[in-house]
This record gives sequence, structure tokens and C-alpha cells, in this order.
Amino acid sequence: MNRVNALIAGCLMAIVAAQPAFAAVDREKLLTEPGVFGTFAVFKVDDSWWKLDKAARTFAATEVKAVFQKHGDNIITDTYLLRGLMGKADFFVRVHSTEMLHNQNFLVDLMGTRLGKYLANTYTFNGITKKPNYVPSLPDDLKTALKTPPDPGPKPYAIVVPVRKDAEWWLMPQESRNAMMKEHTEATVAYLKTVKRKLYHASGLDDLDFITYFETAKLDEFNNLIIALERVKENRHNKQFGSPTLLGTIRPMDEILEILAR
Amino acid sequence: MNRVNALIAGCLMAIVAAQPAFAAVDREKLLTEPGVFGTFAVFKVDDSWWKLDKAARTFAATEVKAVFQKHGDNIITDTYLLRGLMGKADFFVRVHSTEMLHNQNFLVDLMGTRLGKYLANTYTFNGITKKPNYVPSLPDDLKTALKTPPDPGPKPYAIVVPVRKDAEWWLMPQESRNAMMKEHTEATVAYLKTVKRKLYHASGLDDLDFITYFETAKLDEFNNLIIALERVKENRHNKQFGSPTLLGTIRPMDEILEILAR
Amino acid sequence: MNRVNALIAGCLMAIVAAQPAFAAVDREKLLTEPGVFGTFAVFKVDDSWWKLDKAARTFAATEVKAVFQKHGDNIITDTYLLRGLMGKADFFVRVHSTEMLHNQNFLVDLMGTRLGKYLANTYTFNGITKKPNYVPSLPDDLKTALKTPPDPGPKPYAIVVPVRKDAEWWLMPQESRNAMMKEHTEATVAYLKTVKRKLYHASGLDDLDFITYFETAKLDEFNNLIIALERVKENRHNKQFGSPTLLGTIRPMDEILEILAR
Amino acid sequence: MNRVNALIAGCLMAIVAAQPAFAAVDREKLLTEPGVFGTFAVFKVDDSWWKLDKAARTFAATEVKAVFQKHGDNIITDTYLLRGLMGKADFFVRVHSTEMLHNQNFLVDLMGTRLGKYLANTYTFNGITKKPNYVPSLPDDLKTALKTPPDPGPKPYAIVVPVRKDAEWWLMPQESRNAMMKEHTEATVAYLKTVKRKLYHASGLDDLDFITYFETAKLDEFNNLIIALERVKENRHNKQFGSPTLLGTIRPMDEILEILAR
Amino acid sequence: MNRVNALIAGCLMAIVAAQPAFAAVDREKLLTEPGVFGTFAVFKVDDSWWKLDKAARTFAATEVKAVFQKHGDNIITDTYLLRGLMGKADFFVRVHSTEMLHNQNFLVDLMGTRLGKYLANTYTFNGITKKPNYVPSLPDDLKTALKTPPDPGPKPYAIVVPVRKDAEWWLMPQESRNAMMKEHTEATVAYLKTVKRKLYHASGLDDLDFITYFETAKLDEFNNLIIALERVKENRHNKQFGSPTLLGTIRPMDEILEILAR
Repeated sequence: MNRVNALIAGCLMAIVAAQPAFAAVDREKLLTEPGVFGTFAVFKVDDSWWKLDKAARTFAATEVKAVFQKHGDNIITDTYLLRGLMGKADFFVRVHSTEMLHNQNFLVDLMGTRLGKYLANTYTFNGITKKPNYVPSLPDDLKTALKTPPDPGPKPYAIVVPVRKDAEWWLMPQESRNAMMKEHTEATVAYLKTVKRKLYHASGLDDLDFITYFETAKLDEFNNLIIALERVKENRHNKQFGSPTLLGTIRPMDEILEILAR
Repeated sequence: MNRVNALIAGCLMAIVAAQPAFAAVDREKLLTEPGVFGTFAVFKVDDSWWKLDKAARTFAATEVKAVFQKHGDNIITDTYLLRGLMGKADFFVRVHSTEMLHNQNFLVDLMGTRLGKYLANTYTFNGITKKPNYVPSLPDDLKTALKTPPDPGPKPYAIVVPVRKDAEWWLMPQESRNAMMKEHTEATVAYLKTVKRKLYHASGLDDLDFITYFETAKLDEFNNLIIALERVKENRHNKQFGSPTLLGTIRPMDEILEILAR
Repeated sequence: MNRVNALIAGCLMAIVAAQPAFAAVDREKLLTEPGVFGTFAVFKVDDSWWKLDKAARTFAATEVKAVFQKHGDNIITDTYLLRGLMGKADFFVRVHSTEMLHNQNFLVDLMGTRLGKYLANTYTFNGITKKPNYVPSLPDDLKTALKTPPDPGPKPYAIVVPVRKDAEWWLMPQESRNAMMKEHTEATVAYLKTVKRKLYHASGLDDLDFITYFETAKLDEFNNLIIALERVKENRHNKQFGSPTLLGTIRPMDEILEILAR
Repeated sequence: MNRVNALIAGCLMAIVAAQPAFAAVDREKLLTEPGVFGTFAVFKVDDSWWKLDKAARTFAATEVKAVFQKHGDNIITDTYLLRGLMGKADFFVRVHSTEMLHNQNFLVDLMGTRLGKYLANTYTFNGITKKPNYVPSLPDDLKTALKTPPDPGPKPYAIVVPVRKDAEWWLMPQESRNAMMKEHTEATVAYLKTVKRKLYHASGLDDLDFITYFETAKLDEFNNLIIALERVKENRHNKQFGSPTLLGTIRPMDEILEILAR
Repeated sequence: MNRVNALIAGCLMAIVAAQPAFAAVDREKLLTEPGVFGTFAVFKVDDSWWKLDKAARTFAATEVKAVFQKHGDNIITDTYLLRGLMGKADFFVRVHSTEMLHNQNFLVDLMGTRLGKYLANTYTFNGITKKPNYVPSLPDDLKTALKTPPDPGPKPYAIVVPVRKDAEWWLMPQESRNAMMKEHTEATVAYLKTVKRKLYHASGLDDLDFITYFETAKLDEFNNLIIALERVKENRHNKQFGSPTLLGTIRPMDEILEILAR
């Protein structure tokens, strides 16, 4: 497994290197605070892209990087390679900012680049972060357990699962929902070390109620986590879970551009 | 947030500037009266559009503006940018007139322009405005609450949610429907200041029963409004809610043309 | 509304002008008798069509007219513009004859013309006319009401709604179905003057049970009719109602060709 | 109706003429015995096909005929024109042999011809013939009725309806299934003279349980047969019935090639 | 049937020949151990591929072979021809390794070849192998029966059926699930000699819960196996079974390339 570790380490270094020298917006704040808008934009590169000559593609890559930098005052971005693990999709960008308009303006600029003209925007999911709804109602030991820090080290895989709840979920008394979310939360405790999670609320911003985002180094553990979540009663109220599930690897935009340009 | 406000203000000025100097049809009347036909036409620009040279695109933009003006005696239009916030769609036009034929003739002419030849018409929704069905049956205090004026200032985001009801909804006694709509209306009161709403009836004019249209400056409030509406019993009778939800920003056609021509 | 009336009148004159000087098949008979096969073929014109030069398009239009004339001994046709009111579709042709093979041969020839090579046949619905199933069981006053003639004057809008019933509908005792259809028929009486209807049976000829065809000058009345039909118990047994609903305007083939060639 | 009869007769003669002078495999045996694999491959011709010059298309047609002949030792084929009666499909080929690999090899060769490069294979259904499951349990008079020979004369229309049953169907005790199939069979007796039927089992070979194939000269009778089958209790267990229904006319490959090359 | 046997034998020899001279990773281990990641990538070759000249295609084939060899240290692969037996798909590759990243890197390289630029990746399924969940709870005689070795000889057909379970399945007490899986397992005993099976767990790695993979020489037996599985109560909990079912023949990549290049 040395090779994998080396790969992961290289990957991590590349990610760090890809961060701008000065953070115009506070990355940590945008990734942890409520009231932040997240947009997940999935792209497929058109076949004709590869028929461009090398110089044209190098120019296009430079132009894309400039767009990322130009919007660095308003947004933070993360990029993911889907190619090989998901049909009809090559990569996705996760964009965070305090105003949805910033996300749109960045993506409009990205799609306006020379590369952008070769990108089909297969899916876009929009959501907003909020303070946890259910944590206040959880028993103290579970609250404590939730503070378990994730294992150190890179988590090269990312998974995005869009979710839509049925009407019965929303019409349920708050107490019943609390009880179900307690059961749901308990099922996740065993995986807090190996799987990082982040939740976005999407009702009305998209044909979804939630966007759930995961990072892990251990897909076997992640598979077990999802099975554990399928086994709690709250699962009865998932009208949509995935469809599409995005499974990709975290990669800096440079590496994605390099792969697409091969 | 100064930057956002500046952007919004600029956006608003552009919208005002985009209104024709003389209003051939009475905009305010068409936007408030019953018996008006509304058509929402969603477009995606073909990739080959961007391969036209600058002169060709400038000519095409002029031609599009002429079509909007030519039909100004019969229709009013509003335009919205979807690009970046919704996959497979770039913008939509909302058309109002007193006869559906006017909407068709305008859109046929729009699609007959040079730009039009590069537009795929991904979705079209058709509806008609009516006097409120349920307001007469509401208690007086709720009727009064409904008169709350929206907060002043621009509302740069627009959301369109098509809705189809199940057979049980339509077969319910009027009283039960009234009771459900009272609950529905109560859920919206807290958001009357931040979210503007407009309703179109679509049964038989499309594969829908209603087209609901919203404008807001605060997407977090809008997200809360939709969650509040998911929590009322009427939600059980929504066979379709969204799918697709259109989330865009109000932009004058000039700006959309400029973005598409980058 | 004078302009609309003038438009409608012009439209009507064009329709009349489009009828062949001698009717090779008896139009009235084919439109009223049982045992007639109806095919609804929906087309979308490929973007490259508009890149043909004027002369090529004029030739193509002449060729299309010749195909309509060539089959005039076997079929009658009506043509409708969908463009502007329905995404991904430009027009449809309704074909009637006493043998489905005639409908196929005409459409094969139409698709074999120069224009045809630019047409995508997005949907086709096939059905057969029959004597009314339920009328004999209706009470006499309802039978009399059904004889109400439609208001004179053109009905420029046409709507096609494909329908599929659930298994329970077909397994119901005839008496229960009669009772439901009596309720259904009563709901339509108020609209007999403003909405013309025609029914085709499609089980096995298509993935449908019925094709319902409407003509009207008043889309508000048509919207009310459909709402009235949604409010009767028979609606519970509609597994599919629309999807797609075709909403278009009756236009002679000449005018459609002219619009497509702009 | 003389014209139709003449057409049908001409059609029949062409079919007979299209049979190879010597039957390398026993056609009758493959069409009646159990354990035979049937593949239904539906094709749509790409628009660019018609832009080939006449000589190229003539060559392509010759090449296709050679492929049919080359595989004549292993397979028998029947060909059907869908164009005009079904959107997004032009024709289908029904292939029979005693080994699915033969069906694949023939179709791979067909798609490898010059014409094949212009064919999109929109659907393929795979099945296997078996001895009748339910006939042994039927009462003697029904068994006798089932021996009614079809009316002589050509049956130019063919319909293919793919079917998938629900879990309850498969979990039902054999006796209940026998009772339902008795009712189903009784509903078909009135149509044995006018509609020929053939059944293929498809579970696991496709996303289907059955492929039902029909031939008739009287589509009104066929429509009545399907309505009769919708009225029996077994219909409650059809999770899928059609979707797509293929409605076409039996035509020799030569005629299909001639139509496609117009 | 001699011809078929000869074909099968030839096919088998080709498969053996296609194995690399030295196995960089242990094929047997990867095919039998738990914790192995399997990716099924389905491809459709673009029509323009066949317009390349012979030299270009020969070069492309050599390049593809080099990619398979390059990744031989990390992955094992099996290749299957779908063309002819499944619409809109030509072949699929099954990839196994101990880290999903290896599967992705191989497929990214494959899609980066000259051939790859002509491949549409229509579907991808991802799963992981595990120790059998239910075998420990089975009675001893059934455990023994499960050890029945498959009949010797090639099994040229492969079938892949993706499966998704409903919420009730996952919420069922373990005992009830054990009982259902006992019934399921008993249904398979009769087919252990003729049908080989392999199971992948997919929850969270894809929009699936399981990927079931089969190999057989006898499709009639396989059809009977699936019918037997449809007849057990566990079938009630299959929300998705197939859709798509992949039915193909095992063929070395060389042969697939040769077929695609005809």
C-alpha cells in the first residue's frame, strides 16, 4: 500500500500548493459557519476539447486559473475528479460564499473561458449551511461523541449524496423527528474518525432538501456508514437518496486540467 | 457586503434602464390582473454560438432587441440568468399578455433571430392568472396580514417552482381545501416582507397545475419559506414540486446577451 | 382585442385556403365516423435547417406540399404550430385515414423529403375512433345537453392530452364506470360551446389508452374544463394525463413552413 | 379497400420473394419450438445517411444483404418498418437462433456494415421461447378453442409489447396464477382468428419478464384484444406493459433499405 | 452444436492468451477475497471512430493494450462485448483492485487514449467485495450444497444486474432477513453447476446497494434461475433489479477492438 500512500501524500501536497498564497476570503470560516451558500457544479468535457492543439489547451488552462484567482475575494473552491468512477461526468467544483450571486458570477466566468466552451454542465446543486437542527435535542453523551475529531491524514475520496424527504417527514411532530435523528446520529458515531461530513440545506434552492457531502480515505468504512444509515427509520422518509451519487477524488484544478488535456 | 449591495444596485439600474421609454402595454396591469397568460421559456445556448465572431454576435444582439421592441404592443417580458445555478439551462424569459397567441408569436420571432438559431428551448411552462381562489374564505386577520407590503429594495433572485397536485387534492370537499390553504397561507405570513409571490394556473395548458413564481433578496429566508410550506398538510398532495426548480437572477436581456457573448 | 380577432380571422382564411380544391377523401366523414385511424406525429426541426439557403428551403417547401397532395386520396391532415408554447417541439401533423398503413406511408414520404431529413420525430401517438362507449347509458337530459353545438367562429388553439388508465379502471364493473363517466360528462356540459373535443382509443397501438383532442378560442375556459375534469372521481384512475400535453395553434402547413424558414 | 388489399398482397409477395431459395436453418422449427433465442433490435437511421450519394447507398444495401445471407446457417430474421408510426425509431429486426451468440454475431456484423455505421441501436430486447406454462392447467374446451387457426391471408401489422410483472405475481401460489391465466386466455379466444401471438421469456436476459409479439391485418381487433386483456385481473400485476410498444408493418429488408435511401 | 462449441473453445483460448505472461497482481486473490473494489465501466463507441483510417485504428489499439499493461501492477481486468445484445452500449470493462483510486487511474488512462476520445462512458457501477453476510446463519446442508463446484468448461455469457433494496429491507430484524436469504439461497442451489455468481456491495459508492455478476454457458438455465429468484419473498424488497441489465459475452480486449474496427 506504499504506492497508495505516496499517491495520497502527493495529492495532499498538490492541494496545499493549489491554495492561493494569501486567502482573500477566510476559507476556514466559510467551511464551518452557517449562512454560507454552497454550489456543486458538475461538468463533462466535450470530445472536441482533445482535438485542440497543445498550445491552445495550455492557454485555456492559464485562463481557468486566472478565473479562480479573480474571484478569490468572494469565493473559495474545491475541485474533484469524477472521471472513471461516474458515467457522463468528468469533474465537479464546490463553491462557497456568503452570497449565491458570487457563486453564479464565478461559474459564469468559468464557463466563459475557452475551456468553459467545451464544458457541459450536467448537474448543479445549490444549498445553504445552517446551525445543526437536531444536536441541541441530543443526549449529552451523544453530543460528546460527536466531538470526536477525524483521524489525521488525507481523505482523498469525496462523495456527494443529494437527498429529498417525503411529505410525512416534514409533517411529523418535532419530537418524532428528534427521536429519528437521534437514532440516525448514533449510527454515525462509529464512523466519525474515518468519514468527515458536511450538510447543506437545499429546499427551494434546488429539487432537493439536503446535499450531504463526505470525505474519507476508507471507502469500505464509508460503505458501512451508508448501510448503517439505511438501517435507521429515518431512511423510510428519503424519497431520493443519491441519483446521482457523486463519487470522486479530491484533486487540484491543475491536475484535473492536466488529465483532461492528455 | 458593500460589494453585493453595489452589484444589486447596479443590477436594478440596469433593469430600469432596460424598460422601454414608453410602455405600449400597461406593465403594472398585466402583472396584477387576472386573465393574463404567462409563458416561461427556458433556453440553453448552443456551444457553437461562441464560435461566431464578435461582429456577428453584436448584430445578433441588436436583432434580439428589435424583436423585444416589435412585440412591445402586445407583451411584457422579464429576463433571468440561470447559467451557473442550474445545469443545462442558460436563461429564461417570462412573457405576459392577454392572449396566448401573442406569447407564441413573440417567442417564434425570438427563436427566428440569428441568436435564436443557437438556442435550445429546454422547457416551456404556460399558465394563466386568476383571482385568488382561497382568500375570500380566510379569516379577517389573515386577510389583513396578506396586505403586508414587501420590503423596499431590489430582489435580485427569482425562483420558479412548477407544481402538480394529486387526484385527492382535486376531489377533496371545498371546505377541506380551504382549511389546508388557510394553514398554507399562515405559513407564508412571516415571509411576506422578504419574498414576493405570484401564482399561475396551468391545468391543461401544460403538464402542471400551477406555476409558482418568487422574487427575493434573501435566499436563506426563501429556503425557510419553502421548508415552512413543506410542513403543512397541503404538501401531501403535491405530486410534483419543482423538477425542475428554476433558480436565477433577474438581469436585463442586454446583460444576458453580453454574458453569453463573452 | 381587435388585433387578435383579425389574426384569428386571417388564420381561418388561410386554413380554408389550404384545403385542396377537390376533396379526394371525404374530410367530414373521416372526422366524424368510427373506425378511422388517427396518427399524431410531432416534429422538431434541426438547427442546420436554417443554414440552408433560401432557394433550397423554397424547393423543400414545394416538395412537402406535393407529398400532402399525393396522399390526398387516402388521408386528411391538419397541421399545428407548437413552437414557442412547448419545449423541444416545433409542429405536429394529425393524419386520419381508414387504414393505419396509409398514415405510415404518408409520414414516411413526408420524412423522405428534403425538409424531412431535418425533422426529428419526437413523439408519435396512434389511435382509432369508435362509437361513444358511455353515451347510451347516460340519462336523456344529459344526452340532449351533449348535442349543444359549439359556438361559431374559429377555434385557433388545439390541445392534445394522451391518457393511460390504471388497472382498477379496466377491472371495474361496467356500472361503476358508467356512473363515473356520467359524472365526467356532466362536468363537461358547461364547456360544450367553447371547447370542441374528439376522442381516440389507443390501447395496444401505443403506450396509451386514449388520445384526447381539443379545440378552443378561449384557453381560460379550457383551463376551467380541465380543472372540472380533475375534480371527478374518474381522475383517480388516470395513471398518465398529458406528459406530454401538446398546446399549439392551428396553422396551415404553408404558414408553418414559412415560420420555419425565417 | 381494394387498394389496401392490393398493397397487402404486394407486400406478401415481397416477403415471400425475400426468403432465401434454400433454408439453411429450418424457419418453421425455429418459429415454433421451445428453447429458441429471440432478439429484437430496434434501429434509427442517422440523418447523415441520406447525404450519402446514391452509389454509396446502393453499395451499402448490397453489403447488408450479404450479412443476412452469411448468417443464414444459424439464424432466421424478420424485418419491420416502424418509421411514421413510432417516434425515434425506423425499423427493427427479429432474430431467432438456438444460441444467443449467433444473434449477437449477426447483429455485430450488421452494425459493422457501411449502413450499420449510420444506425443507432435504440432498443434491444432478448428472450427465449418455452413450452406453454399454463395450457396444461386449462379446461379441455379452452384447450380446444386455442387450436382455432388464424384467418388465412397476410397480416401486415406487427406489434411488440414488452412486459414486466410485479413481485406479487411471482410470489402468488401456482393455482392462483393458473386461475388468472385461465381468465386471460378466455379473453383472447375471440381474437384467435385475427391476431397471431408469440411469447418470449426474458427474465434476466433483459429488464423484462416477457416479450409479447403480435401479427394482425385488423388493428381495430387488436385494439379490442388489448382492452380485453386490460380487463382481466392479471393486468394488476403488469408493472410494465409496453413503454415502448413497437407498432410497425412487416416489410422485407429490401423495401426498408429502399425507403431509407429515398 | 459443434460450431458453438468450437466458437466457445476459440473464445476460451483467446481469453487465456490475453492474460499477461506474468501476473503482476494475484488475479485469483483479487477475484475471491473480501475488501476488493470492483468497477464496471460501460462504453459506447462514437460513430466517427469508424471513419478513422486503418492505420490510426491499429495505432489506437496498440495504445489501449499498453494502458492495460501499464496498470497490471495494480489492477486486473475482464472485458465483455455488449454490442448486438444491448442498445446504446458496445462493451464493458470489469476492473478489480485493492484501492478505488487504482480503478479510477486505469480508466482515466484508458479514456485518455486515442480510442478513449471516441468512447462515451454510458454507465459506471462501483462496488466492494465482502465476506458472505448470510452464509453463517444457513443450515449445514445448505452450506454444503453451496460448495457444489460449477460445471467445468467455458461460460461465455456474462450478466450484470444492479440491485437497490427498499427501506423495509434494511429496517427488517436480522432474523427475518436471514430467513429470506435462506429461501433465496435455496432457490439458487439447482443452478450452482451452470451459473457462477459474484456479489459486490455498492451502498454509497453508487446509486445501488448491490452489483450481482453472473457467468454461464446456458442462458436458459440462467433465465430459470432469475425466475426462481423472482419467486422468493426477498424479491418484494428489490426497488431496482437491473435497469440496466448488462447481457454480454466474455471476449478479450483484442477481439473487441477488432470488432469495433471492422
